[in-house]
Amino acid sequence: MFESAELGHKIDKETFRQEEPKLRAALLDTQFDLRENGKFPVVILVSGVDGSGKGETINVLYEWMDPRYLSTLAFSAPTDEERERPYMWRYWRALPPKGRIGIFAGSWYSNPIAEHIQGNLAKGDLDQRMDQINRFEAMLVNEGALVLKFWFHLSKDGQRQRLKAIEKDPRTAWRVTKESWARLKTYDKLQEAAGHVLRMTNTPWAPWIVVEGTDDRYRSLTVGKVVLDALQKRLADTREQNYPVAPPMTHKIDTLDVLTALDLTQQLEKKAYEAQLAKWQGRLSELVRYPEFKKHSLIIAFEGSDAAGKGGSIRRVTAAIDARQYQIVPVAAPTEEERAQPYLWRFWRHIPRVGRVSIFDRTWYGRVLVERVEGFCAEADWLRAYSEINDFEHELHKDGAIVIKFWLQISDKEQLRRFKEREKIEFKRFKITEEDWRNRDKSAAYHAAVCDMVDRTSTSTAPWTLVEANDKSFARVKILRTICERLEKALNTEKSAAKSNKDK
Amino acid sequence: MFESAELGHKIDKETFRQEEPKLRAALLDTQFDLRENGKFPVVILVSGVDGSGKGETINVLYEWMDPRYLSTLAFSAPTDEERERPYMWRYWRALPPKGRIGIFAGSWYSNPIAEHIQGNLAKGDLDQRMDQINRFEAMLVNEGALVLKFWFHLSKDGQRQRLKAIEKDPRTAWRVTKESWARLKTYDKLQEAAGHVLRMTNTPWAPWIVVEGTDDRYRSLTVGKVVLDALQKRLADTREQNYPVAPPMTHKIDTLDVLTALDLTQQLEKKAYEAQLAKWQGRLSELVRYPEFKKHSLIIAFEGSDAAGKGGSIRRVTAAIDARQYQIVPVAAPTEEERAQPYLWRFWRHIPRVGRVSIFDRTWYGRVLVERVEGFCAEADWLRAYSEINDFEHELHKDGAIVIKFWLQISDKEQLRRFKEREKIEFKRFKITEEDWRNRDKSAAYHAAVCDMVDRTSTSTAPWTLVEANDKSFARVKILRTICERLEKALNTEKSAAKSNKDK
Repeated sequence: MFESAELGHKIDKETFRQEEPKLRAALLDTQFDLRENGKFPVVILVSGVDGSGKGETINVLYEWMDPRYLSTLAFSAPTDEERERPYMWRYWRALPPKGRIGIFAGSWYSNPIAEHIQGNLAKGDLDQRMDQINRFEAMLVNEGALVLKFWFHLSKDGQRQRLKAIEKDPRTAWRVTKESWARLKTYDKLQEAAGHVLRMTNTPWAPWIVVEGTDDRYRSLTVGKVVLDALQKRLADTREQNYPVAPPMTHKIDTLDVLTALDLTQQLEKKAYEAQLAKWQGRLSELVRYPEFKKHSLIIAFEGSDAAGKGGSIRRVTAAIDARQYQIVPVAAPTEEERAQPYLWRFWRHIPRVGRVSIFDRTWYGRVLVERVEGFCAEADWLRAYSEINDFEHELHKDGAIVIKFWLQISDKEQLRRFKEREKIEFKRFKITEEDWRNRDKSAAYHAAVCDMVDRTSTSTAPWTLVEANDKSFARVKILRTICERLEKALNTEKSAAKSNKDK
Repeated sequence: MFESAELGHKIDKETFRQEEPKLRAALLDTQFDLRENGKFPVVILVSGVDGSGKGETINVLYEWMDPRYLSTLAFSAPTDEERERPYMWRYWRALPPKGRIGIFAGSWYSNPIAEHIQGNLAKGDLDQRMDQINRFEAMLVNEGALVLKFWFHLSKDGQRQRLKAIEKDPRTAWRVTKESWARLKTYDKLQEAAGHVLRMTNTPWAPWIVVEGTDDRYRSLTVGKVVLDALQKRLADTREQNYPVAPPMTHKIDTLDVLTALDLTQQLEKKAYEAQLAKWQGRLSELVRYPEFKKHSLIIAFEGSDAAGKGGSIRRVTAAIDARQYQIVPVAAPTEEERAQPYLWRFWRHIPRVGRVSIFDRTWYGRVLVERVEGFCAEADWLRAYSEINDFEHELHKDGAIVIKFWLQISDKEQLRRFKEREKIEFKRFKITEEDWRNRDKSAAYHAAVCDMVDRTSTSTAPWTLVEANDKSFARVKILRTICERLEKALNTEKSAAKSNKDK
């Protein structure tokens, strides 16, 4: 969820100076069109960790747009008036009318998250509130509103640095209070709660837009461009808005993303590889025979560029497991029987019993990768798939499955080398088809699809592991190590959880 | 929610003999069309209280349709295979493919409801499960499935009688076990849980169809006709199914409904009226000054046929309350400002503070009454309004508001008499317009809309009270008495709840 927002995005002064006036003019124009059109309101939520630049960003939006048609509501402690009415009343009265933009600094999310972190709101109650919020937002979108939910993220270290910088500057020092530093201590708690809340409320109709908060220029430019883009798309959309699904939100304003941030030069020498391979394979074969594992199952999902080495990696994993304990599920085009069912059905079929392992060679993510890029399903269908997949994996996790997901990434150059090699080597020729060559042409579209996928489906219960796979040895060891570490954590966590339950 | 299913619906033998062969032939035809079409699966859930005829109905459907293309899954205790996999696995593997009908006897609802009644599943956890179920069903519907959820209802007395009848018949006696009688004891608990679950999961895309279970012929005919109707509508719908909203489900097969069941001849003599009026007005004026009321607010919603006497009734209520404590909100066409907001906004504006009273003369139900009947909003919009309204009222209730809703019903004849009288009397003439006369022509459409409204929005937290209003005195006293009783219950309930919290 937060992967893309911990990459250290930065925009230099020069770029910003060039981009700002264009963006500003476009935003003003579009805001004017919105008023003229007058058919829908825009609700912008600005949320995130302390010191991530919520206030600054709102000020920048005011600078860039016509403030007469913006309204900002900063919600802190409720007034008398508000306290004596149902909780949602204060938000209802603050809703912008059609043709206007309302910016919510602190929103219906703030209070439940804060209460939960302070221990005043149990997990079950928090989930109930999130369910109500989902219904409320669905209603807003059904009623025509364009809802943009921003979450500004800072890494723990990033938050510390931001606070120091703000404190140092005499113009902003007043904004750093004791509470700000206190909140840094609860960083992990907030991240955990935020991750959960964002997963629960990442709906097809109002998805979260997570933005790295460290760099002012990057953050402002990103928010400005997302707002502009969403507004323009919506104003151009003449369809009757009867299907509440948000269009994809581009907010790539630099070349940095979870894929380009990978260091693909990493490698492992033969000797080290053999030693490491033996070590982790041995550890894995122990772990799956561990008595605690009988209460779990293991689901390993492999995705990756063509020729990234999924097959070879899978063989190194299965080498460590008894053949009776695992099943490899190769995922190709769906069968007739499978096409007659919801798309997740073909994966549910192969969900392992407890104590067993299923390895998927390509997965349910086909929906948001190949089906999206090739246009095999409607936009509305792959857009809703993100939250359906999150629900699916959460369901598995909740009932004891350990879900581990790998994306194997190789460089374009390395891919080309492997394709050519495969063509030369007789027994590998079956592996390279016309389609593989075609897919290479669409690499930009696939690249974007992978980044979106990681942003929207890397959850705390089923995170993605991105594997630098230019060097096969390095990739295989990273995969085996990740599996072992996740298993250790899951089996140990349960032990300590059982212990702490007894302690109560 | 259950009002329509406690009216004592019955179909006589002769009618059934005439209807059955027609329905049977049509069902077979339609089932054939479904197979030929092959584009969507049909998921039928058969749920409800014990002894309400779930098994019988499934058998009848088998008799009426081609059993080769039906599959029935009776879910009781999970098998080994199932227990060792995530909870939803057993339901996924039972899903019917496109072109087929799958009947679920006991479904994903059974276990959570049962566990909750037995005290093994807390309210918060139950709600979480319901949220997951809503997401799951939304996915099914988005994937194209037609989902029909039947809930067979019996009044407490009805259940006792059904059990006795089944026990008496030697062919069916084996079906009544000790557990059946034990379940009768938990009837109220089940009703409460079922009411809550049905409200939570009465989604626009998969609403519940509540059917009275007492009479075999009525129940079978109703289910058969709903299935037939839903199938035919869906087969005829050539639109791309991209907005998941279920069409309205007609299942009126006799003349009995919540409106026709009212005894409109009830009246109150002048003497009795004056005494009763004084009594309840006195009680009301005490109750709103009760210290406990300072933690609540009171929201009274008035709907009713034209000339049913809403205004007069409201005056009898307000006579008992200090003018500074209440506000009457007359609801006419929305203002420009209100049209620029989601339709519930204009009602949120007038939500009272604690210790205050708001009386709505016509309400948010306009959406599913006049707007539906006159076509002022799209079908998809009023269909989703039922659950949005339930969410709205639940939100109010949760935060301490007491929501009381009245539908004032008069006969066509009485309405005509009042219209004519109004035309004669000078000072009442402004009350009767062309529109009133036009509405009379649409009385069948309004009738159906009122019945649907009561079925789908009468919840345990905000039930409808239907008022027989041919006699104004009778109506006014019933209204005042209902308000007092609901207030007493709410204020006392809280007292005992507070007490039981202290006892812990």
